[in-house]
Amino acid sequence: MRITVLAGGIGAARFLRGLLAHLHATVPGAEVTVVGNTGDDITLFGLHVSPDLDTVMYTLGGGIHPDQGWGRADETRAVQDELGAYGEPPDWFALGDKDIATHLVRTRMLREGATLSEATAALCARWQPGVTLLPMTDDPVTTRVDIEDPNGVLRTVHFQEYWVRLHAEPAALKIRFEGAEESRPAPGVLTAIAEADVIVFPPSNPVVSVGAILAVPGIRSAVAAATAPVVGVSPIIGGAPVRGMADKVLAAIGVETSAAAVALHYGPDLLDGWLVDTADAAAAETVAAAGIASRAVPLRMTDVDATAAMAAAALELVRRPEQ
Amino acid sequence: MRITVLAGGIGAARFLRGLLAHLHATVPGAEVTVVGNTGDDITLFGLHVSPDLDTVMYTLGGGIHPDQGWGRADETRAVQDELGAYGEPPDWFALGDKDIATHLVRTRMLREGATLSEATAALCARWQPGVTLLPMTDDPVTTRVDIEDPNGVLRTVHFQEYWVRLHAEPAALKIRFEGAEESRPAPGVLTAIAEADVIVFPPSNPVVSVGAILAVPGIRSAVAAATAPVVGVSPIIGGAPVRGMADKVLAAIGVETSAAAVALHYGPDLLDGWLVDTADAAAAETVAAAGIASRAVPLRMTDVDATAAMAAAALELVRRPEQ
Repeated sequence: MRITVLAGGIGAARFLRGLLAHLHATVPGAEVTVVGNTGDDITLFGLHVSPDLDTVMYTLGGGIHPDQGWGRADETRAVQDELGAYGEPPDWFALGDKDIATHLVRTRMLREGATLSEATAALCARWQPGVTLLPMTDDPVTTRVDIEDPNGVLRTVHFQEYWVRLHAEPAALKIRFEGAEESRPAPGVLTAIAEADVIVFPPSNPVVSVGAILAVPGIRSAVAAATAPVVGVSPIIGGAPVRGMADKVLAAIGVETSAAAVALHYGPDLLDGWLVDTADAAAAETVAAAGIASRAVPLRMTDVDATAAMAAAALELVRRPEQ
Repeated sequence: MRITVLAGGIGAARFLRGLLAHLHATVPGAEVTVVGNTGDDITLFGLHVSPDLDTVMYTLGGGIHPDQGWGRADETRAVQDELGAYGEPPDWFALGDKDIATHLVRTRMLREGATLSEATAALCARWQPGVTLLPMTDDPVTTRVDIEDPNGVLRTVHFQEYWVRLHAEPAALKIRFEGAEESRPAPGVLTAIAEADVIVFPPSNPVVSVGAILAVPGIRSAVAAATAPVVGVSPIIGGAPVRGMADKVLAAIGVETSAAAVALHYGPDLLDGWLVDTADAAAAETVAAAGIASRAVPLRMTDVDATAAMAAAALELVRRPEQ
């Protein structure tokens, strides 16, 4: 069984941990390919940082900081403290020492001519995440957010600045995937979609995570054309994001923050199934009426077992009789 | 009073600390320009490391590790341990976390188009070393050593590999300053030499430190043509290097490891004065016979006071009546 997952950061990583636990217990030999969002990538202190790829890699590889959900466990901050002493901005994006080693390896490889795919594979050779982790593209794509600053001036900021520094407080007027139009899917991405037995949208941000991946030309049409069923897990429960600030960026694309609205935003051309939380049972009916199979189950990823049950329910929702 | 010093790493840094103490006590307003060796520079983990510039900067700025004489005090090693976990070579060159911040700032600036001079000035803005620290050149110059490996095969290695990894154990057959012929003195270097009131060769390695600086076209002739007297402090005491392994590289250029031989290697066209240790009183006579003023004084840099006395003796040795 081949499963291809379009993944953002923390939500996707935690979902994947549950999915792997479920597969490990029930489907021996299942192969999972993760297509990771790189629109959040940012250059800090000259280092190429890939937050979403690293969150998936660290989480599945056992290196993640368990409470914060990003960065490394048992982390120190000597380098960044020292960069601060040099007056090096920014100070709003935390890079731990262990994490910096990851970025040094990636940055060195990229400078030496490797692709982001190759750098990701080299890093994963250590972490053994149990999935094939692919960046959505090896080309530079940068998610930017148009905002109005407190003085009423329109500004465009890097997504990380909007998310981490500004805490998504200014209204997002527009989300741009800079460079996306000229980008190509990374090697293996289209094949993983075309040859999948199931395609999964985990509970990731539909705009800046899954949306960024779908913005790479060829990926959306590959998902729409895939023979495999596509099942999504709602990142919205009871009208609010499970975590993060997805409501802020949903507003920018004119989509209501609700489990049903996100499913309809993806639409039946992409989705075959959509899992909503038990708090959103009415949404399941709305979604089903649009031609997308839907079911309400508990969607809180409180632990690996609960998440494995979610993953099982997602796969079950789109299971075909012949399988 | 303007003093220009051609400096290597630890020996020069410690001498400079004494020189500044002496000047602070006796010559208000004295200005010291340090022309630092960059032939030892090396790219490690994608970072541009300038060992000699940093040793001078950290020592005079109060950040040096007091015992080892290089690197930062109170240092940790989280990043390099983690790089090791990724299997990143090399493991023979120690980079602490605080030190890595320095290299990150420098590397980022260089990648953004700054010169090494500009990066050095930016780093010194924090450390306030009390001298103007200039790299010998902004162009890439790399000191390489030809050796015969244990299997009798001729190899050329980076100076750091020879010095740090191989502990200078293989005989050095030849020292090469790769790139030196095409290099130009960094901005300010020739002026600092031409306008100096005194030029000092501190007790640095005459081959790979001062020798590398003199290999940048224009610097040797500027020193030879300078109106200021040039005074050197022997890095050799009693036939052995005060520290380091200068004997290994002196052999490569056919110079005996003695206080007199090093002075004669520089020669009277460069040197006006040469300070030797009290253990080398006979050498002072040999050197004087060659037309270079010489005097034997204690040259062990046991503390700042002893070093200040050495610096005072060096300046005194070439003091002109009119000054």
